[in-house]
Amino acid sequence: MSSSRITIPARRGKAAYLDRGQQVRVINTHGQQVIDTWAFNRDDLSECMSMEHLRTALGRIAVHGGDALVTNRRRPILQLVEDTSPGVHDTLLAACDRYRYELLGWTDYHDNCTDNLAAALGELGLAAPKPPSPWNLFMNIPVQPDGRLSFEPPVSQPGDYVLLQAEMDCVIAFSACPQDMVPINGVACTPTEAHFEIV
Amino acid sequence: MSSSRITIPARRGKAAYLDRGQQVRVINTHGQQVIDTWAFNRDDLSECMSMEHLRTALGRIAVHGGDALVTNRRRPILQLVEDTSPGVHDTLLAACDRYRYELLGWTDYHDNCTDNLAAALGELGLAAPKPPSPWNLFMNIPVQPDGRLSFEPPVSQPGDYVLLQAEMDCVIAFSACPQDMVPINGVACTPTEAHFEIV
Repeated sequence: MSSSRITIPARRGKAAYLDRGQQVRVINTHGQQVIDTWAFNRDDLSECMSMEHLRTALGRIAVHGGDALVTNRRRPILQLVEDTSPGVHDTLLAACDRYRYELLGWTDYHDNCTDNLAAALGELGLAAPKPPSPWNLFMNIPVQPDGRLSFEPPVSQPGDYVLLQAEMDCVIAFSACPQDMVPINGVACTPTEAHFEIV
Repeated sequence: MSSSRITIPARRGKAAYLDRGQQVRVINTHGQQVIDTWAFNRDDLSECMSMEHLRTALGRIAVHGGDALVTNRRRPILQLVEDTSPGVHDTLLAACDRYRYELLGWTDYHDNCTDNLAAALGELGLAAPKPPSPWNLFMNIPVQPDGRLSFEPPVSQPGDYVLLQAEMDCVIAFSACPQDMVPINGVACTPTEAHFEIV
């Protein structure tokens, strides 16, 4: 088994092709970085990993080891094979975008996961479809019994990873979330790089 | 104030134009019917009401009276003005589609909310965009403390309604959900018509 470590630069995105059966290890190198994650059918980008279809398939809002992550056609596209983190990832919230930062009071352009997805797919020569709701790896958004959400720092540690297996030929895309106005990337509000390895 | 009652036929969809400031009363005529609901910017259908952006905006998974429902550009498109039901509506799950019924064991074509959205927009001469995750009015999907979901009958009564106000010129679309294999439309698993009035 060979692998090479690919950098998801801080505040940026990166995408890669996966063949069915290949695995990708997504590493929270510095421990406190949220990694927005998308996957698309390589032969038809309109079929994508879909959180709203996933929640129906799982009958819950969280993903556990062994779970299949399904598309908007309700077919498995990834499987969560292993998770060395405490397993806290978000399925509920949209990727950040320039509108989010404008509402938070930012007046200039702010890096954001939505644009990072488009740029990452663009590096592969792919046109970005309407961005699906991402699987926000390591993002800690607890749901209170009354349905309230809070935006908390990750509970992962440096080097924690998730191992994903492609269940169809796909394109996988990541964004090291550039959120630095809300402490979802740690209390220091300092986005960092992360890495992945195709194994 | 004038209004006329428009039928959402059982197992079917219906769409209508709303001008900014107009209100629409969405009526659970028989009390146990889930009504999948979408809204689109009339001038740009790629801007749509988005549940994943809504949850960030609200900081919770449920919609309360007075809340603005936002788009994927994080702008208000609807406001929940009044709700005579107990307020149990779903923001988490995708619209049903033919794949959902296939997975439940149905072998022929089954009416579904995704196709109903396309047909309802088609009646207005509009091409359906990739279907956004709907706001599932009256749909009762409790979230347990451990994140598990269950598919329960509505807690609404005949004649319960929600009153929505358009915050921009928009197209609103409804589907009287044809789900008859899981008791989300009541324990009788018998989808019914519903109605709306533009007031």
